[in-house]
Amino acid sequence: MTTRGEQTREKILREARQLFKRKGFGATTVNDLLDAAGTTKGNLYFHFADKEAIGLEVLKREQQAFYRFLDHAFAGGSPVEGVDNLFHNALDKNRQQAFVGGCLFGNTALEASDTSPIFAALVKEVFAEWIARLAEVVSAAQVAGQIRADIPAEDLAELVVASIEGGIMQSRLLKSETPLKRALDTLRTVLGMQQETNIQINSPKG
Amino acid sequence: MTTRGEQTREKILREARQLFKRKGFGATTVNDLLDAAGTTKGNLYFHFADKEAIGLEVLKREQQAFYRFLDHAFAGGSPVEGVDNLFHNALDKNRQQAFVGGCLFGNTALEASDTSPIFAALVKEVFAEWIARLAEVVSAAQVAGQIRADIPAEDLAELVVASIEGGIMQSRLLKSETPLKRALDTLRTVLGMQQETNIQINSPKG
Repeated sequence: MTTRGEQTREKILREARQLFKRKGFGATTVNDLLDAAGTTKGNLYFHFADKEAIGLEVLKREQQAFYRFLDHAFAGGSPVEGVDNLFHNALDKNRQQAFVGGCLFGNTALEASDTSPIFAALVKEVFAEWIARLAEVVSAAQVAGQIRADIPAEDLAELVVASIEGGIMQSRLLKSETPLKRALDTLRTVLGMQQETNIQINSPKG
Repeated sequence: MTTRGEQTREKILREARQLFKRKGFGATTVNDLLDAAGTTKGNLYFHFADKEAIGLEVLKREQQAFYRFLDHAFAGGSPVEGVDNLFHNALDKNRQQAFVGGCLFGNTALEASDTSPIFAALVKEVFAEWIARLAEVVSAAQVAGQIRADIPAEDLAELVVASIEGGIMQSRLLKSETPLKRALDTLRTVLGMQQETNIQINSPKG
């Protein structure tokens, strides 16, 4: 059972996440947070030292949620199905949020890279983990003949992560799934992704 | 000859561009602008209605500069050389700024997509123009047998733009050219870019 204090803390973190995604960390004021969470300054500062502390906690939770998202995409199935799940789930997640808010790590990368070493360090860790885990799956798919093997798995993983982040940026800007979906479909083709049961290269128009 | 007033206006715009790139528009205060430009509130508000007006003017100038950057990359040479120039110049530009500040359009896309329709409209225009012009060059390269022709030129152009934006994001985060350089080298390979005088696919390690 959660106490009322815990509920308030959760509410602040939940609303903060939405505001940071939509407006950015810098443009979100403590008053925005109070309004959204329907709480008082006294309550907020009882739970958190400052806005930075809220930002860090939001990022840490997002990191754990993202690692579970990766676990889920890569669990079971063949390696190429893992990559395909990642593509599918990334599109789906952005579709569910109606292409508002984008990717909190990408947003933070652009916002914090030159100004906030603590936020930047956490986001670096997330991207390094994403690329490393994806590279492992791509490498396994290459061994299984399901992805082209003439380019190192880590290079392909980096291209995929860059394209997904750039694709989310474009889809968020246009409020349309087309840019991200297109980037993913084109990636499927240029990676030479082969489905096990149905050997074919997906059409670039997917 | 420029008047002192014009010089002040230019100074404000120049410093604003640097601050918006590094910190973001939302996190830059009018006081930051005054400090950086070494001017007074009276002077600033003589030249600009508000921070938004400065932001819009900075973006409009960046748009014109970027169109010249595209003209320059695509001028002369074969189509595939145009694409290669774009890759080379994008890396060079980010290297020159020591991977600080990233791409003002990418930054603004993430910052303004959900909050500032005017900024978002301008950035949309820039990306649409970039993709359309690149697609034309890619299409010409496909006709000349210099880029793989089994994927529509516009899909390849979108993948390139997404990868460059995502690559700049990663290079800025790591303060290293590696992510962007790798993404570009991998793109060269997956696009099957062929140099006219020296038919080869560039190594992904470039």
